[in-house]
Amino acid sequence: MERIGILGGGQLGRMLLQAAANYPVETFVMENDASCPAAHLCHHFTKGDISNFDDVYNFGKGLDALTIEIEAVNEDALLKLENEGVRIYPKPAALKTIKNKILQKQFYKDNEIPTSEFIITQNKADLNHHTGFLPAAHKLAMGGYDGRGVELLRSKDDLIRAFDAPAVLEKMVTIKKEIAVIIAVADNGENALYPSVDMVFDNRLNLLEYQISPADIPEKILWKVEAVALKVVKDLKSPGIFAVELFVDMDDNVFVNETAPRVHNSGHHTIEANFSSQFDMLWRVMLGYPLGSTEHILPAAIVNLLGAEGHSGEAVYEGLNEILQIENVFVHIYGKKQTKPGRKMGHITILSKEKQELIHQANRVKQTVKVLARI
Amino acid sequence: MERIGILGGGQLGRMLLQAAANYPVETFVMENDASCPAAHLCHHFTKGDISNFDDVYNFGKGLDALTIEIEAVNEDALLKLENEGVRIYPKPAALKTIKNKILQKQFYKDNEIPTSEFIITQNKADLNHHTGFLPAAHKLAMGGYDGRGVELLRSKDDLIRAFDAPAVLEKMVTIKKEIAVIIAVADNGENALYPSVDMVFDNRLNLLEYQISPADIPEKILWKVEAVALKVVKDLKSPGIFAVELFVDMDDNVFVNETAPRVHNSGHHTIEANFSSQFDMLWRVMLGYPLGSTEHILPAAIVNLLGAEGHSGEAVYEGLNEILQIENVFVHIYGKKQTKPGRKMGHITILSKEKQELIHQANRVKQTVKVLARI
Repeated sequence: MERIGILGGGQLGRMLLQAAANYPVETFVMENDASCPAAHLCHHFTKGDISNFDDVYNFGKGLDALTIEIEAVNEDALLKLENEGVRIYPKPAALKTIKNKILQKQFYKDNEIPTSEFIITQNKADLNHHTGFLPAAHKLAMGGYDGRGVELLRSKDDLIRAFDAPAVLEKMVTIKKEIAVIIAVADNGENALYPSVDMVFDNRLNLLEYQISPADIPEKILWKVEAVALKVVKDLKSPGIFAVELFVDMDDNVFVNETAPRVHNSGHHTIEANFSSQFDMLWRVMLGYPLGSTEHILPAAIVNLLGAEGHSGEAVYEGLNEILQIENVFVHIYGKKQTKPGRKMGHITILSKEKQELIHQANRVKQTVKVLARI
Repeated sequence: MERIGILGGGQLGRMLLQAAANYPVETFVMENDASCPAAHLCHHFTKGDISNFDDVYNFGKGLDALTIEIEAVNEDALLKLENEGVRIYPKPAALKTIKNKILQKQFYKDNEIPTSEFIITQNKADLNHHTGFLPAAHKLAMGGYDGRGVELLRSKDDLIRAFDAPAVLEKMVTIKKEIAVIIAVADNGENALYPSVDMVFDNRLNLLEYQISPADIPEKILWKVEAVALKVVKDLKSPGIFAVELFVDMDDNVFVNETAPRVHNSGHHTIEANFSSQFDMLWRVMLGYPLGSTEHILPAAIVNLLGAEGHSGEAVYEGLNEILQIENVFVHIYGKKQTKPGRKMGHITILSKEKQELIHQANRVKQTVKVLARI
């Protein structure tokens, strides 16, 4: 039986392990927190620091293969493990490119992949030379995650919020749509694209409102989106699951925003909405099985459940009963003991043939389900 | 968070736990074997004997609810736990009725539920008075499981194989079809029927060949099947998941064969083929959520993977790669370390709009996938 490890024990690990139990595979997880969402669903849990060379190396050295659920892992250890014959998904070279936003942008440029204009800045003072480039997004090269490590700099007055560390200054694009495409790549290079996903944002709060799949875009743009996403993945030259996030501007130009070399929030609906989910698919890739079907069962919406403002402490969930009365609504609670404002605590998937119904129910779910702290 | 336990740690427990990770629930499993299929997927595993009063009572007494994945559990302990406020799915009274084949048959008779004619026998000698009743099936009152505890007595010559213990002698019915219906019942009595399942047997070996859902029966018979199955469940007066197995004879009469008060092999296709699976549904029932949708996504076939004849030892799986190339084929390997002839080691689900395609692929899967012992 193959022995496969996951670095990180959050919700992505949890959902990977739910899917793993279909296959002949012995599972290993490493994470600092022994009560993390994935800890109780693997065969072997190791408490350890995924950013520490020794911890990662020692965890991985007896395994057949390794994957990640977060980019912030020790890539030198992965490189050494790869050299010693452990299969790594994604390849450490691809991870290295993606993990550093400067290298990632440079990779798009070198491979003629359309992406917004950018300038590399080494420190805060650098930005004074580029005030003419504003409005722009300043993105920390290393360590950004889930909206952290990004500052929108609209004018000179905002420079005070700029990062005093290596970063990318990205020209602001007026966005019509933000689209995500999940792609699976097998060891032999074969690939499979999932239908594209519409990421609908609350412009006021710059927060993801909900996701709809398949995205509502004309075929001509869809074709561009898929071609660009596929080129990103092909040039990364690595098996695994990839989430490519793209912008469509007012002139229907398509730009890559960023890529994640792993299962991703924008693919969670695939558990119920597609025949082979992104989690199932990654096991097929890692175990050397043929890729599954990415075909849609029904159109889907996803709403993320975030910890409510003003609530920190032991998590309680309000409104699940009400929304589970809606036909084809599915709950995924990640099992995190503690909630805090904005923390991803779960997600809810809605299936329906009717797009209007999806949006209606997504809004209803957002208004009904709350993650509070026990008083 | 609700604390819910499962008595038994086999494949049913495993699939229940895969589904549990969607919900806010803390899971407990008790089983004698610490490397059983479900052991690594729960929050808390207890090594213990599910037929032992103290073990079951001690396991259950701190929990909010308990379910079973096999009937052979200590029902006195469950009764005591129920009296102390632990919710039991199914109720111990219903379990008691079903678990003993004599009581089960008597229950059908008392409730005017059609079932094949029967005679209760206390020992082997009893059968001499009933040779005129043959051909018949002799079924042990207690302890039968998965085909064990049943002897077909075609004539007086077969009486040597009769059981010398309390048993039921059931008149042999000439069967046109064997149908299974999975039904979910909520605490408030609400219920939901899954589409019926055609159990196709190899008559030569008396082995289940494959299952197809929905069953291919005229609406008039389907109506009878569903009405009878629903009556069984209503008269059992218990929440939970129930699998009612029925016979359709040559005159289109419908008889109950037997009922299982738990998730069941005949419902495994619901994982991929129905919006809410039998496993998802049981959590909805136990957590007090509304019932899910039993609607079909696509027609499905299931093939059970049994340990190959002549092979005992560490399990290896042959042919998975080949059959995973077929569109919408899904593998479920139960993670049992040891295989032996006839042991249920996994199942494979096939989805297709075309019934002929389902049968064709089911046969292909049967011929291709083998569970062997490592040499």
